[in-house]
Amino acid sequence: MKNMANIAVMGYGVVGSGVVEVLEKNQESIAKRAGQSIDVKYILDLRDFPKSPYKDKFIKDFETIVNDPDIQVVAEVMGGLSPAFEFVSRCLCNGKSVVTSNKELVAAKGDVLLKIAREKNVNFLFEASVGGGIPIIRPLSQCLAANEVYEIAANEVYEIAGILNGTTNFILTKMIQEGMPFDEALSMAQELGYAEKHPEADVEGHDACRKICILASLAFGRHVYPEQIHTEGITKITLEDVKYASIFGGNIKLIARVTRQEDGMLQIITAPMIVSKNHQLSRIDDVYNAVLVRGDAIGDVVFSGQGAGKLPTASAVVGDIIDCAKHLQSRKFLFWEEAVTPYVADYRENTVCFYVRLQSGDVKKSMEEIKKLFGDIHIVVSDSNENEIAFVTPEKVEGVLASDFGALLTNGNTILQKIRFAGL
Amino acid sequence: MKNMANIAVMGYGVVGSGVVEVLEKNQESIAKRAGQSIDVKYILDLRDFPKSPYKDKFIKDFETIVNDPDIQVVAEVMGGLSPAFEFVSRCLCNGKSVVTSNKELVAAKGDVLLKIAREKNVNFLFEASVGGGIPIIRPLSQCLAANEVYEIAANEVYEIAGILNGTTNFILTKMIQEGMPFDEALSMAQELGYAEKHPEADVEGHDACRKICILASLAFGRHVYPEQIHTEGITKITLEDVKYASIFGGNIKLIARVTRQEDGMLQIITAPMIVSKNHQLSRIDDVYNAVLVRGDAIGDVVFSGQGAGKLPTASAVVGDIIDCAKHLQSRKFLFWEEAVTPYVADYRENTVCFYVRLQSGDVKKSMEEIKKLFGDIHIVVSDSNENEIAFVTPEKVEGVLASDFGALLTNGNTILQKIRFAGL
Repeated sequence: MKNMANIAVMGYGVVGSGVVEVLEKNQESIAKRAGQSIDVKYILDLRDFPKSPYKDKFIKDFETIVNDPDIQVVAEVMGGLSPAFEFVSRCLCNGKSVVTSNKELVAAKGDVLLKIAREKNVNFLFEASVGGGIPIIRPLSQCLAANEVYEIAANEVYEIAGILNGTTNFILTKMIQEGMPFDEALSMAQELGYAEKHPEADVEGHDACRKICILASLAFGRHVYPEQIHTEGITKITLEDVKYASIFGGNIKLIARVTRQEDGMLQIITAPMIVSKNHQLSRIDDVYNAVLVRGDAIGDVVFSGQGAGKLPTASAVVGDIIDCAKHLQSRKFLFWEEAVTPYVADYRENTVCFYVRLQSGDVKKSMEEIKKLFGDIHIVVSDSNENEIAFVTPEKVEGVLASDFGALLTNGNTILQKIRFAGL
Repeated sequence: MKNMANIAVMGYGVVGSGVVEVLEKNQESIAKRAGQSIDVKYILDLRDFPKSPYKDKFIKDFETIVNDPDIQVVAEVMGGLSPAFEFVSRCLCNGKSVVTSNKELVAAKGDVLLKIAREKNVNFLFEASVGGGIPIIRPLSQCLAANEVYEIAANEVYEIAGILNGTTNFILTKMIQEGMPFDEALSMAQELGYAEKHPEADVEGHDACRKICILASLAFGRHVYPEQIHTEGITKITLEDVKYASIFGGNIKLIARVTRQEDGMLQIITAPMIVSKNHQLSRIDDVYNAVLVRGDAIGDVVFSGQGAGKLPTASAVVGDIIDCAKHLQSRKFLFWEEAVTPYVADYRENTVCFYVRLQSGDVKKSMEEIKKLFGDIHIVVSDSNENEIAFVTPEKVEGVLASDFGALLTNGNTILQKIRFAGL
C-alpha cells in the first residue's frame, strides 16, 4: 500500500463511534477499496473516554484538525448547526474534504458549503444525511437527477415523495397495526431508543422536512430552506383517524414531498397523509424509510431500507470517506445553486383532497351543509360517537377547501381533524 | 466544449432506437454532464431504415466500427450471444469501452469480458442488463457490495432476492388480482407488448435466472452461470394455487434469489414462491421489478421500479455511455473472478417449506398419512373438488421433503403442485 489518508472524526456519539469502529475493524478491506489505507488520526469530542481503545486519538481542540496539513478528510458527525457549520466551512476552506451525516447542516447551509468545496476543489459528501443506510444521494445525483448544473440524459425527475423519518413511522405503525395510542407508541419508541427524550424534531416533522429539502435541492439544482416548507407533524393523529383512514382505503404516513410545477416552481410539503393501501409506500413499516423518485423516462423508482441506526448510518459515512480518499485530486460532481425567491410555491395553491372528521352540532344539518358544499359524497357516521362524522372532500385547490371548511364552522360544528390524501 | 466522444450503437431494435433518440435529443445536456459532446457515428444493423432521420449513420459491417480508431465507446444492444460476444470482445480488445443491456451476454460471458476490459484499461458496463431503469448495478457495486476484489467497508451483503422479470410479474398479478387464468394473462401480456411471441425465456424463468446470476457474480465476486441454477417457471401455476397461497397468507411471485452460506458457497434458485402478504415484495405488481439486498450493516434495502421498457432501459444505457465518456482514461472498479467449482450449492440442501396441493385417492387416509409425516398440521380441503387437499409442510431440508413427498404417492394420491415459501 503506497499511500495513506489521514482523517479526523468530529463527534463521538452514536454515529461517530460507529464510524471509528467500522474504520478500525475493516482496515484491510477499506484500504483495498480506497486504494490506500485510511487512518483515524484525531477524534474530536469535549468528553473524556479514558477506557476507549482509541483514547490516544481524542482531542478537544478543533484547531488541531484544521491546522494539520496531514488531515485530508474530515467526518462531521456532531449534529446541530453550531459549531458544525463553522468547523465544516473552515475545514473545506483549508482544502480538506468533508463528509457529514448532519441533515440540519446540509439543509441549512448546503449551498454555501458546496460552493466552498467547489472553489477549493475538494469534496463535500452527505450520503448519510438522508435515509441512513439506503443509498439515495448517490443514485439520485449519478443515475436519476436532472438539474441545471448537471443534467442526466434520459430522465427528468419531476417528483420525490418519501417516508423519511423512522421514529414517526414506527409510531404510526404501532397505531395502525396494534391500535396503540400516540402517547404510548411514543413512549415505546423512546424506550427502544428510536425516539429522543425531546422528540419534537421527529414528531413535529422537522427532521423529515430537512431531508426533503436536501433531496429537492439535489434533484432540482437549487437550495431550498426548511423554513420555506409547510410542515405538519403527527402529534394530533388519533386512533379514530387511523380507523377512518382505513375505511377510506389507506394508511396514515408522514410524507415529505416535492413536485416540480410546469412553471419551474416547486410544490413542497411535509405532512401526515393517507396513502392508499394499494401503494407500495403504505407498506413501509416500523423504522423503515422509503424514497419514491418519479421521472419521465424511468417512471417510479422506490428505494427503501432502514433509515437510521448506528451501523447503517456509519456505513454510509464510511462509504463517503472512502469516496473522498479515492478522489483526493478530483471533485465529485455534486452541486446545487443558492436559493432564490420565488422558488417554492404556496402550498395552498396545490390541488388536494382531504379526509375530514367533524364534531357536529346537528348531524342531519351538517350532512346537508357538507353535501351542499361538496356534492353528494359519502359521509360516515361514527359508531362510537353519534355526533362525529367523517368524509372525504373532492379534489380542489387547497385554499378553496380552506374557505369551504370555514363555511362549515356554524351550528356548533368543530373540525376535529383534516388529513390530506397522498394520491400517489 | 473541447472534446467529443464518438460512439457506435450496435443493434437498432427497441432499445437501440431508444438509445439513439435519447442521445440525439439531449445532446446539450448530455455534453454538459459527460464533459464533452457525444456523437453517434455509426449504427450497426443488417436491416435498412431509409426513412430514419439517422439514415446516414447506418452501416452493415462490424469491421468498420472495430477498426475505426475514432470510436471510443460502443453500445451493444443487439441481444443474444452470437455475434454479440465476438463483437463486444473484439471492441474491448481494440481499446474501446463497451456498454450493454444484454443480460444473456453478461450472464454467460461477464467474467471473460471484464477480464479483457481490465487488461485493456477500458470499461465494460451493463446497468441496463438488470432491472431496466432501476439503478441497481451501480448502487450494488459502489455502495453495498462486498466481494473479494472490491470490498466495501461497513457492509457485507449476504442475500439478494428479487422479482426480476416484468412479464411473469404482470401475468401473476392478473391471476392474483383479477382471477385471470395463466393462458389468458399471457395472451394479454403479448397483446400489450410485455411478452414475446415465443415467451419461454420469460415464463420458464430463464430471464430472471440470468439476472440473479449477474447480481450474484457482482455481489460475491465470482462468476455464476445460469446453467448452475435450479430454475422453475410459472407455466404450471393455476388459479387454485393462487387461491391457496392467499389462504396460507401470501401471493405467488417469481423469485430469483441468492444467499451466501457460511461455508462461502452460494444457494441460488429461481422459482415461483409464496411471499407473505406482509412483505414489501408481495406488493410489487404488474411489470414492476424489485431487488432486495440484505446486508449485515445496512439491513434490508429494496430497489423497485419499472424493470423494462424502451425509455427506462435506454436511459440506463445512456447513463453508462456518459460514464464511459467521463472515464476514458480510467477504469471503473467493476470486476468479478472467473467461475470455480464447487461454488453453487445443491438447492436440495436448502431448508424450505412447501405449499402442497394433492389429488387424494382417499381424503381421510391421505390426511392421516400427511399428519404421520409432518405432524398435526392444518390441512385445507378444497371447496370445489372434494378429493383435493392442500397443506403447508414444516421447514425441512428440501431433499428430505422430496422423500416425504415420495412416500405420499400411494393409494391413488397425486401431487398436483408444490410451491416453496419465500420466507423473506
